[in-house]
Amino acid sequence: MSEASVDSIRQGIDECDEQLLLLLKKRQQLVEQLAQVKREKGDALYVPEREKKVLARIQQQAKNIELEPALASDVMQRIFRNSYQLQSQMRFSRSCEQVKKVAVIGGRGKLGALFAEHFQRSAYDVVIIEKDSTNDEWAQLKLVDLVLVAVPIEVTESVIQQLTGLNKNCVVADITSHKQKPLGWMMEVHSGPVIGLHPMFGPGCTTLARQLMLFCHGREAESCQWLIEQFSVWGCLCREVEATQHDEVMSIVQALRHFCAISAGQHLLSSQADIGAIAQMSSPVYRMELAFIGRLFAQNPELYVDILLNSSQGVEVIESYSEQYQSLLALLKNKDRTGLLKCFNEVKEYLGDYAEDFLQESNRLLAAASERN
Amino acid sequence: MSEASVDSIRQGIDECDEQLLLLLKKRQQLVEQLAQVKREKGDALYVPEREKKVLARIQQQAKNIELEPALASDVMQRIFRNSYQLQSQMRFSRSCEQVKKVAVIGGRGKLGALFAEHFQRSAYDVVIIEKDSTNDEWAQLKLVDLVLVAVPIEVTESVIQQLTGLNKNCVVADITSHKQKPLGWMMEVHSGPVIGLHPMFGPGCTTLARQLMLFCHGREAESCQWLIEQFSVWGCLCREVEATQHDEVMSIVQALRHFCAISAGQHLLSSQADIGAIAQMSSPVYRMELAFIGRLFAQNPELYVDILLNSSQGVEVIESYSEQYQSLLALLKNKDRTGLLKCFNEVKEYLGDYAEDFLQESNRLLAAASERN
Repeated sequence: MSEASVDSIRQGIDECDEQLLLLLKKRQQLVEQLAQVKREKGDALYVPEREKKVLARIQQQAKNIELEPALASDVMQRIFRNSYQLQSQMRFSRSCEQVKKVAVIGGRGKLGALFAEHFQRSAYDVVIIEKDSTNDEWAQLKLVDLVLVAVPIEVTESVIQQLTGLNKNCVVADITSHKQKPLGWMMEVHSGPVIGLHPMFGPGCTTLARQLMLFCHGREAESCQWLIEQFSVWGCLCREVEATQHDEVMSIVQALRHFCAISAGQHLLSSQADIGAIAQMSSPVYRMELAFIGRLFAQNPELYVDILLNSSQGVEVIESYSEQYQSLLALLKNKDRTGLLKCFNEVKEYLGDYAEDFLQESNRLLAAASERN
Repeated sequence: MSEASVDSIRQGIDECDEQLLLLLKKRQQLVEQLAQVKREKGDALYVPEREKKVLARIQQQAKNIELEPALASDVMQRIFRNSYQLQSQMRFSRSCEQVKKVAVIGGRGKLGALFAEHFQRSAYDVVIIEKDSTNDEWAQLKLVDLVLVAVPIEVTESVIQQLTGLNKNCVVADITSHKQKPLGWMMEVHSGPVIGLHPMFGPGCTTLARQLMLFCHGREAESCQWLIEQFSVWGCLCREVEATQHDEVMSIVQALRHFCAISAGQHLLSSQADIGAIAQMSSPVYRMELAFIGRLFAQNPELYVDILLNSSQGVEVIESYSEQYQSLLALLKNKDRTGLLKCFNEVKEYLGDYAEDFLQESNRLLAAASERN
């Protein structure tokens, strides 16, 4: 092929790229127009079924023109994310006309501010209570329809104890990582509707679309429904869980995980490992794990330490993991290949189909991660 | 806004999507034409600088039309991946005209087959040696320019010991996860060029583009250069490392990591945790970690157990992690908040800027992961 025709192919590719960007822009503008209408109607920002339908259609169209369906759906999902991010910066509708005034205690904290700001953009009248709030400001709580407690776990109990004399229809909610104890405290101080929330996302997320909000009902579930609907309007996936099971699962998902990550950090420090060299030599999986360990230490130490200290079953779970670790270590020191294989295969059997699902899921993640060097 | 105009917006979005797919298809066809030319010239499949240049241009163009640059570059990177995958199924050029005949011992194993197949598609004459190979087949090794040892770690030493009487210019290479010992074995049996390889990817990857290939020179580095270039032609990122440092780093990146994951699996099994409930209640970070634990158990038990058993410093590192874990556990049991915070902050200081880098990197991954539910 001549140099001239190579140049003309290159030019053709550049033109495609330019058209692609213009098309993305045009689509974005159309979505914004549509969003305006949907917002007025109070529709949820993220509707999984609607997304699935669009993706199925796109994949079929891709097949028709012999384009890799996974490429089409990945590109479309990236476009969706952008669209959620843009819409998350706009105004939202209120899920319930009657509810107008909400208070966020700790509303200048990172996560508290995120909620306060979402309520404001949904045309609620928002009262923010902080450590330095005056008695007059606290007195406003008597008039609100929701008190959201978003303070550090260490002071959650004492703050909740101050929530006396609220309107009997006022919803009281907290967002701590444990649910049994805070629910008990809220039920004791307030005789109206109570709900425990656990947002499974941090203050850094750029949209609430697709983010998981766990909730445990305390009292008068139907009176709390508007709040769940409001989270849906913002794009959250809301999932009801039972408080006991929640706390059990969190001792693994949070306490043990954070503990192992802090231990891993301490281990790297104690062995004075060369982080740069490790990052350079890492497989994509380890590179991600290293990032998950490292990210903890860029965040608030108190938050993580207090989650650990307040976990009801944390110590138990952390000790139980350690027992498994020690018994595997004994096998390894004895060079007991058969014993190690037996352990491996027992877990394999216990996980069943989940193992293969996890392999597929992580392969997709790793492929996506390889694009982000 | 009227229902009619809502419908016309929706129709406009659908049309955008259709045009987008057609554009992706057109671009793909142009890239295929260009790839043909580049393949003839023996260019590398993946050239990071070229990618960076295209991305910088795309991001600038996006800014010009007030489109989110991250959207433009993410979409473009996904397109690149597709293009690498397609090109990886085509023929490759040989990096060196003089080298024609290569042997892969263990060439029907998963990773061995991947290499054998890549050599074949690069017009090499490939000899595959397996457990059941005849003496006549082994005798062919005398004529080859490369012997790639791709057998399980357990039998690597005994297989290497059979590599006597090779052509003095023949390159001998292995792909085991440890590098000091195999390099020693290869240097002892063969007096010509020797190189140790450690592919940081598994047999499941759909393209070698962007995949990391670590290598440690043994003898006659310049005679091994064609092999490194061949990996580059296939798209690998090749990185030279020193064998001692490699093995040190791998005791953390592989041995400790696999050990912790097997322990985590055993712990879930021993506590009969409900994997479904955990997956449903997980934050995106834990969901990924669960997938990384689970993926191990969908793979070859022998591979992981043998990497553990053969790691020279594995036991040492696994014990040292355990010591850190136990001392943190003691602090936790004493409810020593100050002590825990001190540990946390020491690691934070040691990681320095890496902590923030890891937070940013993992935030990008988490955002991408949220698209793949």
